[in-house]
Amino acid sequence: MKLPVSELKSKIIELFAAARAISEVDRKSVADYMVWSEMSGVHDQGIVKLAGANGLQKTIPEGAIKIERETPVSMLIDGAKNIGIVVADKMTDIAIEKAKKSGLAIVASHNTFSSNGAQAYYVEKIAAQDLIGIMCSRSPGTVAPFGSIDPLFGTNPVGYAFPTDTDPIVFDGATSARTFYSLILSNAAGETLPEGIATDKHGNPTTSPADVMDGGALCSFGGHKASGFSMLVELLTGPLAGGSFLDYTDEGKEWGTTIIAINPEILVDLKKFKSDCSKFVEVIRASRTREGRSIRMPHDNARKAYKAATASGMVEIDNKLFAKVFNG
Amino acid sequence: MKLPVSELKSKIIELFAAARAISEVDRKSVADYMVWSEMSGVHDQGIVKLAGANGLQKTIPEGAIKIERETPVSMLIDGAKNIGIVVADKMTDIAIEKAKKSGLAIVASHNTFSSNGAQAYYVEKIAAQDLIGIMCSRSPGTVAPFGSIDPLFGTNPVGYAFPTDTDPIVFDGATSARTFYSLILSNAAGETLPEGIATDKHGNPTTSPADVMDGGALCSFGGHKASGFSMLVELLTGPLAGGSFLDYTDEGKEWGTTIIAINPEILVDLKKFKSDCSKFVEVIRASRTREGRSIRMPHDNARKAYKAATASGMVEIDNKLFAKVFNG
Repeated sequence: MKLPVSELKSKIIELFAAARAISEVDRKSVADYMVWSEMSGVHDQGIVKLAGANGLQKTIPEGAIKIERETPVSMLIDGAKNIGIVVADKMTDIAIEKAKKSGLAIVASHNTFSSNGAQAYYVEKIAAQDLIGIMCSRSPGTVAPFGSIDPLFGTNPVGYAFPTDTDPIVFDGATSARTFYSLILSNAAGETLPEGIATDKHGNPTTSPADVMDGGALCSFGGHKASGFSMLVELLTGPLAGGSFLDYTDEGKEWGTTIIAINPEILVDLKKFKSDCSKFVEVIRASRTREGRSIRMPHDNARKAYKAATASGMVEIDNKLFAKVFNG
Repeated sequence: MKLPVSELKSKIIELFAAARAISEVDRKSVADYMVWSEMSGVHDQGIVKLAGANGLQKTIPEGAIKIERETPVSMLIDGAKNIGIVVADKMTDIAIEKAKKSGLAIVASHNTFSSNGAQAYYVEKIAAQDLIGIMCSRSPGTVAPFGSIDPLFGTNPVGYAFPTDTDPIVFDGATSARTFYSLILSNAAGETLPEGIATDKHGNPTTSPADVMDGGALCSFGGHKASGFSMLVELLTGPLAGGSFLDYTDEGKEWGTTIIAINPEILVDLKKFKSDCSKFVEVIRASRTREGRSIRMPHDNARKAYKAATASGMVEIDNKLFAKVFNG
């Protein structure tokens, strides 16, 4: 079904208002994120999070978020079990403010409720302020370090955005071979995984998504080097964010997130920087492709979908999911 | 052959002293790096750089390095065609100093002569000061962005190091499927590349290292996600470092490098952080492995070799290479 973007937003806000667990500002923050997600076609990180017994709207935070440590270039936040999206949104604002004042900022958090969704949403906001945004988040252990069969690393997404003279350069991807959500989808659809990316709980190779979800493990997205990037995220969002890591540390430290914001002007001329980044995109788009392939910059599809939804004012939502979330 | 570590160092310093192109301090800086590299078994980034007509000792810099822009958290350096190792070593010291004072620092450079070698050397120095070091460098275009067949990205290595209670956690790897140096070695040895990681100058798949060196291209280390990490390095060391990128910009902007240093104390307690990072290593090492495999943390082999060389005071050098460099 298609419905007006404004209607989707109102409906999400109403859902949270009825649950009365979070403030009006925070409801709007979650709704803005979800609407962006659905408009961008990133349906696996959108209103699906409102479906079922554990819908986000049922989250009851421990209280307000707490600042644990702060300097002009940094802040560590205890999320007090607030919704990951709400906390990440505040972190984004803080990172922007600090990077504008100090040139460089790092903002980290732990103890949030569940995932903050697509990293692209937050880093794009940072790039909209003419800053570079780099963000990474931890999720429960699903990925085995290279050589291991234990699911120690999270799927650990990384997002970044660089401003240009037009649309920012945006990348957003899990450092795992698959996202956890795609395992759920594959399992529901009765699909198998490609060979060589997963093991069951005994460490034997498997192509069954159910095996992975039952104590098995995924690989990182590409051999030992990718494992190195999974590990970097695990370190930046675990030990450095006072968060849990390798599924070792205590309850209440979960879903660590770290955002780095850089004002390019502390190194180079902003105008030149943005024009260089624009040129960067042009050169890649104009490069030769293997026959039958086309050049697609990361985030191209999501941006195209978002722009189409903005132009029409309408957003496409799966009928069943809509019914489950709003009429359930 | 094996020779005393101290003798290797003296010989390198003498070679540079005879060439008289760089200062005594800079000679020592290059020699320290090279000795570390050979002791660590990282022979492809060591004295091989002194062999042949383009040996590093023949480099004549334009003059002293120049500070182009500086803030309490940042510095941009024009390397004035000084040796990459010399410039990276100074950048490391500056990043440490700034991160200690401000908590966070970014130091970038362009216009250096050739590669700065193994990123592990520099980030390990940063970690030795109880700071997190993250470093990336650009090299000439060799890697095709995902979907493209043009060699636009450099092999773009990334290194990072985190302090622990004992040895730091260290990672160092190119974001390409192969390093450029390994292509030279494979070519000299008459070896072919694995299928699926390279194209020739026409964009056709190839397994010939010579084809790649003749205008062909390598892939990033693992599909479209790895391409995203190659791109991140290209952006941080190109537009953000005033360096060349995608082989598009002018001569004299080449070999961009960017170092980020983070003092963990701006976010968490240092003692806890280091102990968490120690625990991190322990948990991974104690995890289950697939039969026949063993857990190896990145940099384990290099560290083992370095420690053995330190203990014996002797370092292993290839006879032919030694003769070529020192008796050539």
